[in-house]
Amino acid sequence: MVGGGVRKPLDYEELNENVKKVQYAVRGELYLRASELQKEGKKIIFTNVGNPHALGQKPLTFPRQVVALCQAPFLLDDPNVGLIFPADAIARAKHYLSLAPGGLGAYSDSRGIPGVRKEVAEFIQRRDGYPSDPELIYLTDGASKGVMQMLNAIIRSDRDGILVPVPQYPLYSAAISLFGGSLVPYYLEEEANWGLDFANIRQTVTEARSKGITVRAMVIINPGNPTGQCLSEGTIRELLSFCYRENLVLLADEVYQQNIYQDERPFISARKVLFDMGPPTSREVQLVSFHTVSKGYWGECGQRGGYFEMTNLPPKTVDEIYKVASIALSPNVPGQIFMGLMVNPPKPGDISYMKYAAESKAILESLRRRAHIMTDGFNNCRNVVCNFTEGAMYSFPQIRLPQRAIDAAQSAGKAADVFYCLKLLEATGISTVPGSGFGQKEGVFHLRTTILPAEEDMPAIMSSFKKFNDSFMDQYDGYGGGGSSYSRM
Amino acid sequence: MVGGGVRKPLDYEELNENVKKVQYAVRGELYLRASELQKEGKKIIFTNVGNPHALGQKPLTFPRQVVALCQAPFLLDDPNVGLIFPADAIARAKHYLSLAPGGLGAYSDSRGIPGVRKEVAEFIQRRDGYPSDPELIYLTDGASKGVMQMLNAIIRSDRDGILVPVPQYPLYSAAISLFGGSLVPYYLEEEANWGLDFANIRQTVTEARSKGITVRAMVIINPGNPTGQCLSEGTIRELLSFCYRENLVLLADEVYQQNIYQDERPFISARKVLFDMGPPTSREVQLVSFHTVSKGYWGECGQRGGYFEMTNLPPKTVDEIYKVASIALSPNVPGQIFMGLMVNPPKPGDISYMKYAAESKAILESLRRRAHIMTDGFNNCRNVVCNFTEGAMYSFPQIRLPQRAIDAAQSAGKAADVFYCLKLLEATGISTVPGSGFGQKEGVFHLRTTILPAEEDMPAIMSSFKKFNDSFMDQYDGYGGGGSSYSRM
Repeated sequence: MVGGGVRKPLDYEELNENVKKVQYAVRGELYLRASELQKEGKKIIFTNVGNPHALGQKPLTFPRQVVALCQAPFLLDDPNVGLIFPADAIARAKHYLSLAPGGLGAYSDSRGIPGVRKEVAEFIQRRDGYPSDPELIYLTDGASKGVMQMLNAIIRSDRDGILVPVPQYPLYSAAISLFGGSLVPYYLEEEANWGLDFANIRQTVTEARSKGITVRAMVIINPGNPTGQCLSEGTIRELLSFCYRENLVLLADEVYQQNIYQDERPFISARKVLFDMGPPTSREVQLVSFHTVSKGYWGECGQRGGYFEMTNLPPKTVDEIYKVASIALSPNVPGQIFMGLMVNPPKPGDISYMKYAAESKAILESLRRRAHIMTDGFNNCRNVVCNFTEGAMYSFPQIRLPQRAIDAAQSAGKAADVFYCLKLLEATGISTVPGSGFGQKEGVFHLRTTILPAEEDMPAIMSSFKKFNDSFMDQYDGYGGGGSSYSRM
Repeated sequence: MVGGGVRKPLDYEELNENVKKVQYAVRGELYLRASELQKEGKKIIFTNVGNPHALGQKPLTFPRQVVALCQAPFLLDDPNVGLIFPADAIARAKHYLSLAPGGLGAYSDSRGIPGVRKEVAEFIQRRDGYPSDPELIYLTDGASKGVMQMLNAIIRSDRDGILVPVPQYPLYSAAISLFGGSLVPYYLEEEANWGLDFANIRQTVTEARSKGITVRAMVIINPGNPTGQCLSEGTIRELLSFCYRENLVLLADEVYQQNIYQDERPFISARKVLFDMGPPTSREVQLVSFHTVSKGYWGECGQRGGYFEMTNLPPKTVDEIYKVASIALSPNVPGQIFMGLMVNPPKPGDISYMKYAAESKAILESLRRRAHIMTDGFNNCRNVVCNFTEGAMYSFPQIRLPQRAIDAAQSAGKAADVFYCLKLLEATGISTVPGSGFGQKEGVFHLRTTILPAEEDMPAIMSSFKKFNDSFMDQYDGYGGGGSSYSRM
């Protein structure tokens, strides 16, 4: 019988330990405090998560027109529909409704609508120059869900290790905890523009194996989150050779492939590099690549659309992934249509092309300018150094915290970067994520912001940051810019 | 190094065993065969899954208008918008856009939009007569995802047991396998209109415990899937007392609460009965209740909207559930708006009320007629007996298979009900799910169909079924209706 001090199954103490172990900083202590402050009436600038529309980015018009029409198919018979929707949006809505029998209200196949998966395959072929098979492409409720599905299939116990870049996007650490696996961190080299050091990675794998961990997969995030670096073709080639030699699945998180802010290293997919390498690597390395409608110049986070493509996975495994996807029936159908539209946008000559091109160009160019404003702003601050955001949506400055700040944090029972970020939040309303949420080398401190606040607000935000940082450094590093009390990099 | 017979991490043999153990019949062998036949050009009637729009049910107009406008907020500034959208849909779209800063393209809070959770809480209070706290309501991508989140929190190892009704909806068996728990079946009594036999359930729990299983939770599906029964208040009261005595979480799957086809036992929520009971039960039993936009007269399966409400869960547990929900950032936002609309539909006096009321009444009344047509149709067939579909969307007839059919199935290497359903599919195009996918007593055979085919097609479907069944019984039970060769119930 319940009561009298007997614990109940959903009491905290009785929960699945893997659930309790999960840490997820993007919506962690800083986010919760920011939400409280917002409730109290403080103006908060939420730069904790890559959520462009929440910070005022307008949706692209054409895809929204198409999905609105798919939601309201009865409009297609309305004689006035042409007054407020362009003809190519109407035609495209009819196209998707023909691909999705039952429309947006019907479950699709659990892998996604076949016709949309075909559009994704055609996009991949155009992008990479190699054919892609729609049967190996599964649509998902955003990329995160796809990553979780794959990690769930890979992880058998806490003896299974997943190589994850550090700093990393905490989806990976959280999902690995949830599925009871072991995260094997490989450090990105901040001094080398967040590059990979393969000698180091090899050493990491050797050490993990000596502890009885079976290292089974490697995650790359390209462009990097939170680090913003774009991988060169050579690096990806080396990565794939490494995965080949070490028998690792490569999980390629390529959700920021449209978000590139430099011209030296345009995005190149792991899949293209793999096929360029030829056999045996191209036939042997198991690769799963992830994409989404949440990023790029789309930023349609709330729609939850994404896909993953499986390369060199045996058919029986592909079937198992299908079976597990079936449990929750199907990814949301509007999100699938957004995915179709993203990979198959208006073409030159289409009625909506000029508008679509202008809107997307404006967003991308503004993001590029914001990447510069933010990097430069951070580098202008005392005790702050920051690599340029080559891609993705984040800036990840290192804050060289004075020893007295570290001591003060310790007295307050906080990690030093959490302490700094909380003070930043209280002083300025800027809601960031402490570097410890992503992982960082011992004694080195960072924070992550997105580059997403409106461009016109950016100078004020950076100056507000600088003012806070100056006063923080004055308080804890009162000797004025001398190097002796810095924590070491 | 890979190759040369070395297994790779995503080879079938190397996958997580829990993934491989999952069985999911709703999209299993029958569904796959039906999909093949459809590709070959055969007309298939998909009654394998409760997917109303896929079988021609039209969406309700008002909610689609509102969500279309939310997708295309720029229409709200278009002077022609009033030509194709009614004023109350426009007002409601503005309302939801005011609740969701950033609109449908922004991630919401991982628990869902606060304003929508408030609407859900108000709906629950109106329905049950007891206040409901929005902070204990989490929105989800359909009810299935919510069920999975809760089972994941509850199950710690294969020593943890979950009581599941048999026949059951295979979401439960599949998710319990995936999370590595143990399903403890309790049998519904077909002769007692799929009722619960508590002496039996108690015995089941005792036996499970004697095998070292910690029984931690109990699932009810009310109205039942696949069995269609509606639980009486007395039964739910007995259930809750049982959970209280045995220290079980009650997971109340109430997704069919709008789908009621008799008047004797209207839907009553487990939560209302719990609070009616008063302390100590009302303060002690941990209850999680699930709802969705996929069922009812909405049938908006593809939108993936749902919620769960937590009763008597401690705050620390509620926080843990929040943390895990955060990993995938947020449920899809359009699905959240549908949930808001479902719990807060047009009211008498609103411009769209008459249309909304007429549409929903027509769907519900037709479903009621179809429930009768189907039950009667099955009961008119030789060796078939079927309880009336009191609620939900399914018919679950028992097929008394002749011994020769069972033998023929065995020779073909098939379960006897799978054998029957495959032959039905090949002969008629009717795609059902064999009873073994839901669980049934040893030696008793069923199939599940939905009652969702269009009403005007129903007589032809039932006559096609009868013709097939007659010929099947002629073939395997050639002595003509005698009882001696039946399998026993």
